[in-house]
Amino acid sequence: MTTRWLSPKEMRAWRAYVTATHLLEDALDRQLQQDAGMPHLYYSILANLSDEPERRLRMTDLAERTQITRSRLTYAVARLEKDGLLRRENCRWDKRGSIAALTEEGMAVLERTAPGHVETVRTFLFDKLSEEQVEQLEAICSGIAEGLQEARPASDDVPWRRRSSPSCS
Amino acid sequence: MTTRWLSPKEMRAWRAYVTATHLLEDALDRQLQQDAGMPHLYYSILANLSDEPERRLRMTDLAERTQITRSRLTYAVARLEKDGLLRRENCRWDKRGSIAALTEEGMAVLERTAPGHVETVRTFLFDKLSEEQVEQLEAICSGIAEGLQEARPASDDVPWRRRSSPSCS
Repeated sequence: MTTRWLSPKEMRAWRAYVTATHLLEDALDRQLQQDAGMPHLYYSILANLSDEPERRLRMTDLAERTQITRSRLTYAVARLEKDGLLRRENCRWDKRGSIAALTEEGMAVLERTAPGHVETVRTFLFDKLSEEQVEQLEAICSGIAEGLQEARPASDDVPWRRRSSPSCS
Repeated sequence: MTTRWLSPKEMRAWRAYVTATHLLEDALDRQLQQDAGMPHLYYSILANLSDEPERRLRMTDLAERTQITRSRLTYAVARLEKDGLLRRENCRWDKRGSIAALTEEGMAVLERTAPGHVETVRTFLFDKLSEEQVEQLEAICSGIAEGLQEARPASDDVPWRRRSSPSCS
């Protein structure tokens, strides 16, 4: 198959994308490490739990929401549990379907850290974009995310998915 | 200061951005680990060297191009040198201003791996975008990158920068 190399225009867009995304991730990690002692990935796990009415999610659903691979999520959750920011609970319908629940301390860390995190996101992302560009960014990223979600390999990245078991929430 | 929380529209764009960028980085890492035994970050170091007429760059300039922080770049370059894919050389004007040079083996790895890498970028990014969206993506990412480059902290992220020393290339 002939390689479909990037055009000069695509190459410019690609380089800008790589630079922007890496610098933004560095800036988010730096702020969160400083204010909460954790990288962006860990913060997003806690934030997803806090969005739930009971502040708890099955690991399956947490993996879906955060789109984190099985091995990374297992490691991150163990670390957050060790720090007392979440705890693991068993699901009464399905012992294997473990649940992650945000602790009071985890919630307190989030509440203390969220303003600085949002300020970083606003300063480096949304303050640079027009209203129209916010819509363009959502359309572009939704399209990319959909394609990648459909193509994820079954081996690593469909963690704990058991559609047949009842909900535990 | 009152926190400027995200609007629902901004929140949607932010969630799509986080999901798309994390999934794409995972897909790129997976392909490059499989085909070249290295993550995307390492590949981009080799690719930047290969773009140069003499396939070599001062560490200062390599840091500028790749926008990798000092500690990560030092580690990555040491690892790539150990694998025989690049070598460090001294700059004749400035002994501290070490140079990274791509080896023949490094170039061979790049040539073998580039088609698969470009195919991944095309499949998961450019095939999902219209011509117009490619331009929008470049404009959005250039704006974000500029703001972040201006704001980088002097402590960590201005690696090896000595503007007074002459060029070594």
